[in-house]
Amino acid sequence: MEKKHAYKTLCKKSCQKVTIMLKDGCSAVEAVSAAVVSLENSLLTNAGRGSNLSLSRKVECDASIMDGRTLNFGAVGALSDYMNPVLVAKELLLHQNNENLSLHRISPCVLVGEGASQWARSRGLKSIKSDLLVSENALHTYNKYKRKVEEAENDPRKFLQREPANNETLHSEAKEMEKNPCISSEAWFPGDESLKLDTVGAVGMDCCGNVASAVSSGGIVLKHPGRLGQAALYGCGSWAQNSLSSTEPAVAVTTSGNGEHLIKTMFARTCAETLISNTDGVTGLHYVFHTKFLESPFLIHTSEKLAGVLAMKFDPVSNSVEVLWAHNTATMVLGYMSTHVTKAVTMFSTLPSSVDPGHKPLIQGSLLKLHNKIT
Amino acid sequence: MEKKHAYKTLCKKSCQKVTIMLKDGCSAVEAVSAAVVSLENSLLTNAGRGSNLSLSRKVECDASIMDGRTLNFGAVGALSDYMNPVLVAKELLLHQNNENLSLHRISPCVLVGEGASQWARSRGLKSIKSDLLVSENALHTYNKYKRKVEEAENDPRKFLQREPANNETLHSEAKEMEKNPCISSEAWFPGDESLKLDTVGAVGMDCCGNVASAVSSGGIVLKHPGRLGQAALYGCGSWAQNSLSSTEPAVAVTTSGNGEHLIKTMFARTCAETLISNTDGVTGLHYVFHTKFLESPFLIHTSEKLAGVLAMKFDPVSNSVEVLWAHNTATMVLGYMSTHVTKAVTMFSTLPSSVDPGHKPLIQGSLLKLHNKIT
Repeated sequence: MEKKHAYKTLCKKSCQKVTIMLKDGCSAVEAVSAAVVSLENSLLTNAGRGSNLSLSRKVECDASIMDGRTLNFGAVGALSDYMNPVLVAKELLLHQNNENLSLHRISPCVLVGEGASQWARSRGLKSIKSDLLVSENALHTYNKYKRKVEEAENDPRKFLQREPANNETLHSEAKEMEKNPCISSEAWFPGDESLKLDTVGAVGMDCCGNVASAVSSGGIVLKHPGRLGQAALYGCGSWAQNSLSSTEPAVAVTTSGNGEHLIKTMFARTCAETLISNTDGVTGLHYVFHTKFLESPFLIHTSEKLAGVLAMKFDPVSNSVEVLWAHNTATMVLGYMSTHVTKAVTMFSTLPSSVDPGHKPLIQGSLLKLHNKIT
Repeated sequence: MEKKHAYKTLCKKSCQKVTIMLKDGCSAVEAVSAAVVSLENSLLTNAGRGSNLSLSRKVECDASIMDGRTLNFGAVGALSDYMNPVLVAKELLLHQNNENLSLHRISPCVLVGEGASQWARSRGLKSIKSDLLVSENALHTYNKYKRKVEEAENDPRKFLQREPANNETLHSEAKEMEKNPCISSEAWFPGDESLKLDTVGAVGMDCCGNVASAVSSGGIVLKHPGRLGQAALYGCGSWAQNSLSSTEPAVAVTTSGNGEHLIKTMFARTCAETLISNTDGVTGLHYVFHTKFLESPFLIHTSEKLAGVLAMKFDPVSNSVEVLWAHNTATMVLGYMSTHVTKAVTMFSTLPSSVDPGHKPLIQGSLLKLHNKIT
């Protein structure tokens, strides 16, 4: 119960911090990256410091960011020595916006491993010692599951034994909109028996109607070193695109859950496409979660499919924003806030007790009328 | 002129080798990976040994493979110590097909850097010393462009100076179909003045009507270490999906060109989607190249957009295969062959001299009636 409160408080603080920045006129890209930074900085989440440890007992982070205005994208994968992987992804994004490499070389959009660290250092971003990203909790979890895996692999009868499906995955906080960020985080409660899931993310819109999305993840516990999850892959962990006309919506999406399943369904982009073409956000999210994820031919051989989605859709005609979320993980913490209110709305969303995680999702949304006309 | 012949011979040999395998009943996945292996092994191509060197004077390879039957996908990125990156990607793919990790952990689909090498070694794939992948030609090119970049960066007037657009990019060979592989390779002619492009790839279908696609690339010369191109990213460098019914087509696509542009347009998947929904392959490829690449809102700020596509579409109703290719690079070598002919068709496709590379594509196709009914 106390943990729930801690997660909600973290999200609330993050929402409120970013709302102040947006009031001061910061861009959507700045807003979502700042939101993710505050979630990465917390030891509660599986992103940045406190991330899950890989099989080789190391933190390896993925993060990406997409700018709805330029449609540029920056991502890092398997990054081991940065407090805030999302800031490296943002730097890659901004570098593309101001591209001027000599001899018309093209700015990279995805960098991984030590190469990504080198690039970030060359751009003035300070790395830290890899060990400093390892938290006590992460180490505890690592030791516990390492032992379980070893036991299971030494005993073929246990090999396919199922963990109890009571994983407390989380998403974070809530707000109102008009130049708003939406923030989600997913993490694991120490003490529960499931394999820890991942991902923090944020979507947001600035005062000019530009949208952005960011995502950051330590990946699944005991992942193989060098494994990339959805957070590092284009179209999978984050998606954002501005309105293309005065009648078309702007959409931003961030996803969490089982990385490989979110990759194979390109779930962030797929959700965005559906939200753009569907009038009602909740109906659209319902359709896309069932048809393009749970029943996807790309996951036909997969029995348990876990996903969480946080999305926003701005309709320029009605000058309103739908904040939307869906998850079939046991829980998800989320939050939203706009610049004309003083308090974030935070929420600890929980699947009904009759529903097993990995199947039917909980889908909800909140419609927010904007005060000022976005132009 | 002699180089053209060498590229065509390489493709021809590769086609003929794979056709024998297909006659013996090998799978589409085996066929396309074997085709790419033979192209990686050649010093002529920018894949495997002989790849472009990164800024830190090292070979770093990307490769991926997709199985149209299971819709599984395997990819490696920034791999420095394997002769055949595509075989590591294939191993990741096959591992997913037979997934049985203890405690229901999920098999990775993308691994990068040293982690990818470790995983491959643990699966019995033999690595080699990184230096052995560096060819004399690649070193020559590296030194030349390193000097040019240094000169340009020391002289702001040269900073945005354009290289002559006479790059001899290549794609490889041509054949007939019915259980056929299509093979493409793109590389650089020593002596020309452009920055070297990338990628070898293959698409193919086996006797059961399963399709597959594979791609492998050393990336662009002087790329930043850790940079991933389209060959490592889902939906961007390779795509394959079987017929979902007795009337729907099966499609496989492989792409080459500027990696970042192929990523932002998810070009392999986008081409596949269009080919599935369009009756005529050439018309479909024309539409997708113009609308979804050259005029794509995702590349709106990009002046020169280079792509090459090799695709195949099997229509179960007419029991025929369209082999399709398109490129707006100066050249592309390609080939195709089916199991009921003894000779590969190879082709050195060249843009008309009136057309500058980076703009209007050359799009062509060949319709092949199959002898035996695919069931």
